[in-house]
Amino acid sequence: MSEFRYARRVQFAETDLAGIVHFTWFFRYMEEAEHALWRAAGLSIARAGEAIGWPRVAAAFEFRSPLRFEDEFEVAVRIDEVTSRTIRYAFTVARGKTTIGTGTLTTACVRKGPGGEMKATELPADVVARLRAAAEAG
Amino acid sequence: MSEFRYARRVQFAETDLAGIVHFTWFFRYMEEAEHALWRAAGLSIARAGEAIGWPRVAAAFEFRSPLRFEDEFEVAVRIDEVTSRTIRYAFTVARGKTTIGTGTLTTACVRKGPGGEMKATELPADVVARLRAAAEAG
Amino acid sequence: MSEFRYARRVQFAETDLAGIVHFTWFFRYMEEAEHALWRAAGLSIARAGEAIGWPRVAAAFEFRSPLRFEDEFEVAVRIDEVTSRTIRYAFTVARGKTTIGTGTLTTACVRKGPGGEMKATELPADVVARLRAAAEAG
Amino acid sequence: MSEFRYARRVQFAETDLAGIVHFTWFFRYMEEAEHALWRAAGLSIARAGEAIGWPRVAAAFEFRSPLRFEDEFEVAVRIDEVTSRTIRYAFTVARGKTTIGTGTLTTACVRKGPGGEMKATELPADVVARLRAAAEAG
Repeated sequence: MSEFRYARRVQFAETDLAGIVHFTWFFRYMEEAEHALWRAAGLSIARAGEAIGWPRVAAAFEFRSPLRFEDEFEVAVRIDEVTSRTIRYAFTVARGKTTIGTGTLTTACVRKGPGGEMKATELPADVVARLRAAAEAG
Repeated sequence: MSEFRYARRVQFAETDLAGIVHFTWFFRYMEEAEHALWRAAGLSIARAGEAIGWPRVAAAFEFRSPLRFEDEFEVAVRIDEVTSRTIRYAFTVARGKTTIGTGTLTTACVRKGPGGEMKATELPADVVARLRAAAEAG
Repeated sequence: MSEFRYARRVQFAETDLAGIVHFTWFFRYMEEAEHALWRAAGLSIARAGEAIGWPRVAAAFEFRSPLRFEDEFEVAVRIDEVTSRTIRYAFTVARGKTTIGTGTLTTACVRKGPGGEMKATELPADVVARLRAAAEAG
Repeated sequence: MSEFRYARRVQFAETDLAGIVHFTWFFRYMEEAEHALWRAAGLSIARAGEAIGWPRVAAAFEFRSPLRFEDEFEVAVRIDEVTSRTIRYAFTVARGKTTIGTGTLTTACVRKGPGGEMKATELPADVVARLRAAAEAG
C-alpha cells in the first residue's frame, strides 16, 4: 500500500513526568504528517483567505510502545477511506522496526460562512487524486 | 448513569487559525476531567515516587460542534469498562445543551522498573471502587 | 498595589520528564491571568469580528522555584506600564507563600487589515481605565 | 560571532485564532534549537538516569514580526554568557531576511536529590567547551 512518510524527533516539551511522550502529542504527530502529505501534493490545508476548511470529525490512536526524549521516529500516512464529504487517513508511528502505535483522523470538508459557521460541502474534485498521487510517490 | 462533571473555559492558546479549539485539546480536556475524578476520589494518578503508572492504551474522540475562545463547557466522565488491568472512561463534552463531542480513554496499570520500562499489572484493589463512588457522588 | 488574582492547578500535560512544569507554561499561565482580568473588566481580548488585535511585543519570566503536578497556585497580575500604544503587565506566580516566579508581558494594540497585516494603533480610550478598575476590585 | 542554526516549519497547532504563531511557541523554538546544539556537541540535555539537570532561571523574547502557518524559519543560537553555574543562550529567529524576534534563555546546572529537590552546582568541565565548538562549527 502506498504511504507517505514523515520523519520527526521527540522534543523535550512533548514529554511528561512519566518520562515518555504525552499521549496527546501523537495526535499532533499525525496532523503534522497529514499536512506534510498535502504539501507533497502541492496543496495546503489552510491557504490564507480560502473559504474551504477541514475540521476533524473523528480522531483515534492505539498506543503500543512509548516514545522518549530525542527518539527519532517516522509517521506513515495513507488515504484510508474517502466519501463525498470526508477523508479518513490511517497512520502508523514507528521507531525503527518498533511500532509505537496506529491511528486515524477523519476530516470533513466545510464551507465557511461570514460569521465563522461551517457547512459540510463536497470535497474539491482534485484534492483526493493529488493526495493519492503524493502518497504513491512516497 | 453516574457521572463526574468537570467545568472549564477555553483559553486563547487552545485555539488555532481556524478560530476554533484545536482538536488535540479535547484529549487534554478528557484527561483533566479524569484526573479531577481521581482527586474527587481522594487519589492521584501520579503520586511522587510511586511504582505504579497509568499509560494510555487507546484514545478516541468524535467531534460534533466546535468550541471557541472563552466558551465555558463541561466534561462529564464515567467509568465505561474495567478489566483486570485496564480502565476505560467515557466522556461527553458539552457547552450548555449543545453536545460538542464524545470520547474514550483507555488506560493500563503498569509497574515501572528501575530503567523506566513498564510492565502491565493488576489494578490496585480499591482504585475502581473509589472512582465509581466519586462518580456516583457526581 | 492593586492586583487581580487568578487561581489555577497544574495539569499533567504541563509537566515534563524532569517532573516539573515545563518553563513555557508560565507564559500561558500569565496569559490566562491577563485574559481573566479582561473578563473581570467586562472585556474580551478577542471579540469575534473585531478589527483590533493585541499581539505581544515582549515577554519575560524569572524562575525561582518549580511547580509540580496538581500544585495549586495563584497568578497575581497588575498593570505595570501604559504608553499610547502598549500595555505592560507584571505577574507574580505563587504557591501559598512560596514565590514561584515573576514575569512581564508587553502587548501592542494593532488594527488588522483585510490581508491579515497588523498596524500599531492607539489604545481604545476606556480599556486601560476598565482594566485598572478591575485590578483595584481585585 | 559563531552561531548554530536550527531550521523549522510552523505547524498548524502552533497558530492561534489571530492567524499567527502563538507567542509561547517562540520559547519552545528556542529550546528546540538549544537541544539541537547539544546534540551537535555530542551531548544530551537529559540523559536517562543522570543526576544533573538544567532548569530555567530566566527566559525572554522580543517579538518583531509574526510567523504564520507553514512558514519556514531558522533559529540561530549562540552562547551569550557563562558563569560557574549558569549558561545564557541568545537566539535570533528569522524567516529569510526578516527578523521575527530575538530572545534569551538562562539555565542553571543542578544536582537532583532522591526526593526530586534541585541544588545548584558547577557546570561540568567540558560542557561549555563542547557547546562552543559545536556553535563554531555552525
